[in-house]
Amino acid sequence: MEVSAAILAIGSEIFIGSIVDTNSAYLAKKLSEMGVDVKVVRPLPDDFELLVDVFKEYLGKYNLVLTTGGLGPTFDDMTAEAVANAVGRSTVFNELAYSHIESSLLKRGVVLKESHRRQAFLPDGCILLPNDNGTAMGFVCEYNGSFSISMPGIPYEMKPMFENYAVGFIKSKFNLLDIFMEDIRFAGLPESDVDEIIREIGIPEDVECIINVSKGEIIVRLRGTQKDRLETFSNRLVEKLKNSYIGKGEESIEAVLVRMLKEKGLTISFAESCTGGLLSKKITDVSGSSKVFIGSVVSYSNKVKEELLGVDRNILEKFGAVSAETAKEMAVKCKEIFKTDISASVTGIAGPGGGSKDKPVGLVYTCIIIGDKIMVKENKFVGDRDAIRERSYKTLFDNMLKELRSL
Amino acid sequence: MEVSAAILAIGSEIFIGSIVDTNSAYLAKKLSEMGVDVKVVRPLPDDFELLVDVFKEYLGKYNLVLTTGGLGPTFDDMTAEAVANAVGRSTVFNELAYSHIESSLLKRGVVLKESHRRQAFLPDGCILLPNDNGTAMGFVCEYNGSFSISMPGIPYEMKPMFENYAVGFIKSKFNLLDIFMEDIRFAGLPESDVDEIIREIGIPEDVECIINVSKGEIIVRLRGTQKDRLETFSNRLVEKLKNSYIGKGEESIEAVLVRMLKEKGLTISFAESCTGGLLSKKITDVSGSSKVFIGSVVSYSNKVKEELLGVDRNILEKFGAVSAETAKEMAVKCKEIFKTDISASVTGIAGPGGGSKDKPVGLVYTCIIIGDKIMVKENKFVGDRDAIRERSYKTLFDNMLKELRSL
Repeated sequence: MEVSAAILAIGSEIFIGSIVDTNSAYLAKKLSEMGVDVKVVRPLPDDFELLVDVFKEYLGKYNLVLTTGGLGPTFDDMTAEAVANAVGRSTVFNELAYSHIESSLLKRGVVLKESHRRQAFLPDGCILLPNDNGTAMGFVCEYNGSFSISMPGIPYEMKPMFENYAVGFIKSKFNLLDIFMEDIRFAGLPESDVDEIIREIGIPEDVECIINVSKGEIIVRLRGTQKDRLETFSNRLVEKLKNSYIGKGEESIEAVLVRMLKEKGLTISFAESCTGGLLSKKITDVSGSSKVFIGSVVSYSNKVKEELLGVDRNILEKFGAVSAETAKEMAVKCKEIFKTDISASVTGIAGPGGGSKDKPVGLVYTCIIIGDKIMVKENKFVGDRDAIRERSYKTLFDNMLKELRSL
Repeated sequence: MEVSAAILAIGSEIFIGSIVDTNSAYLAKKLSEMGVDVKVVRPLPDDFELLVDVFKEYLGKYNLVLTTGGLGPTFDDMTAEAVANAVGRSTVFNELAYSHIESSLLKRGVVLKESHRRQAFLPDGCILLPNDNGTAMGFVCEYNGSFSISMPGIPYEMKPMFENYAVGFIKSKFNLLDIFMEDIRFAGLPESDVDEIIREIGIPEDVECIINVSKGEIIVRLRGTQKDRLETFSNRLVEKLKNSYIGKGEESIEAVLVRMLKEKGLTISFAESCTGGLLSKKITDVSGSSKVFIGSVVSYSNKVKEELLGVDRNILEKFGAVSAETAKEMAVKCKEIFKTDISASVTGIAGPGGGSKDKPVGLVYTCIIIGDKIMVKENKFVGDRDAIRERSYKTLFDNMLKELRSL
């Protein structure tokens, strides 16, 4: 059967832009993968009447209404009361929820307050969802065959709650269709080329296709119930664009990199200037990266480039810190210091200051050394400081993957 | 006058969770600060009928309807056509928009295609908003005294377009109220304590108050038209919670840190293990950080701790890499190598693997050295790998700020 869902992110902070709602994207992705059709994604302010109205409307319309946020002990937390009101129940003191709150707070040395009792008032007859990482338990309410599933707004509390408890609940209630999804990633070509090839091949009728552009990458996202048709389409697309093809799947570039390095038994190190630790941060985002990543030097000042990395002062003086020659020298010294199979360096001008006519903001030199092969590259990136740093790391990791594949 | 706005993020990718919508938070913040009341934040899929319906509804209801996304050259880009349809116009070939597309693409060496002509079809009679960082121009349409403002979805194209062109347009059309906002940040106390004090003081009638919890910080956000009442309330709150007070404003911790280091003329360096470059990445997020940040060593392996940093092997063997002793030794050596006024180190277990009964996931040792003062701290963080790393950096930077303030 087709199961539909609305995802509601509750909290006025979203309306003054104080936080970026990452929970909805997480839930949309997980639900889509499970075969649930996400019909609505909607942030809502802490406005009781509005919450009640929206719950009533959506619980009548969709099979699932998932909420994040508004479960805390403070005055602006009103999800439980709003759900209860919408489904025609009252909130009652939930002993189990309270004892969980009590024990979590005691563990953290927090003194119990009246407001913590308030947090334990949940809709009468709701089903609890355990919170293994915080005080606020989640809860499920049934309403005419639909279900509201309310979870906390803190991502590291919400995610395990969803995965460990909500998913099982949803699967026990609905017979979900098998859904096949594939992300196909390309780099180094304009979006319009991808569009043209997709039009040329023609999207099969029951396949959804979305094109995304994200700093330095074009991602074609396919979703459908017919695995073979989806795969035929995806294979033809990759064949037509094989020179720009990066990989399939939603694995981050850094995760692919760590996996490939592990497979090939290679170690890596970095010498970073304008990326200022971003390459290292990204590779260590991947759990288990310690098997391949040995370390790095963030040589933000020339003095560090010279003294710790051992970059030749003459090179720095003759060509400048942002130059192909310095990039090469940084990677060479990095490889020596860390004794790794691979090393890479980045030096550039991330802006907004520091640019000149000869060396404008966005000029970034990278060097990759694999074994004896030294590859220096000049890049001219557009965008703000953040975009330039992001593109530097993505382009470098992309190039490295291409090299590793050809080994 | 009160000016209301709806923010629409257009793109089906949001509904399968492929991207996190950061544009809406950015716009909500900027508009709120300008005195515009953001009534709706809503992601919408690439569904032509739905887009037209929503534009019609919101353009009749709110003064401003801002959209991001759907301006590209591909088949799923349909914002221009949907806006035109909603306001009862047609799209026409816009010479100015096309010549901009042409020149931007030629600069990037992209061959012009039919789809690029398509991108230049915009609502008849619209006002163009220049795009200084990409091909797709934005556009404004008037409809019964309301305005749709459509901008690209790529953040580094949208933000300058909004700031340089849309803001001026909005101000020329509406007389906005002066709005005062203040973010007050606390750390090291439970949310419920903040709630209790706020209830005790009492929120003034015309002040909006929101409490946010974000890894390691509690942020109280105030917004109102009466500056004096807002300030009286905020001062009382800070007074009552002065021991946990971090600062006002929305400046990131790292921005505050860079500013204070600059003011005091101090330099800094890091030795990072489990944070793997995060401290360095964060401080170099701040433009101008090169004035104070000299460099860092990411010593992910013990070998690097020993050989490059010079951590005593006996200490590593006796106490282990994750220990107060190693943290101290890392910071000491870091300060020597980089010859900075301040150094800091982090070593811990970010998980999910690598924990043991004695040294569980979340155990993180930090050391800060300022001048001759050495401060080692043991932390026990909860959450996933990402949360533990985030908390490590925030806690460390918070502690450093506290020390710097007392200098």
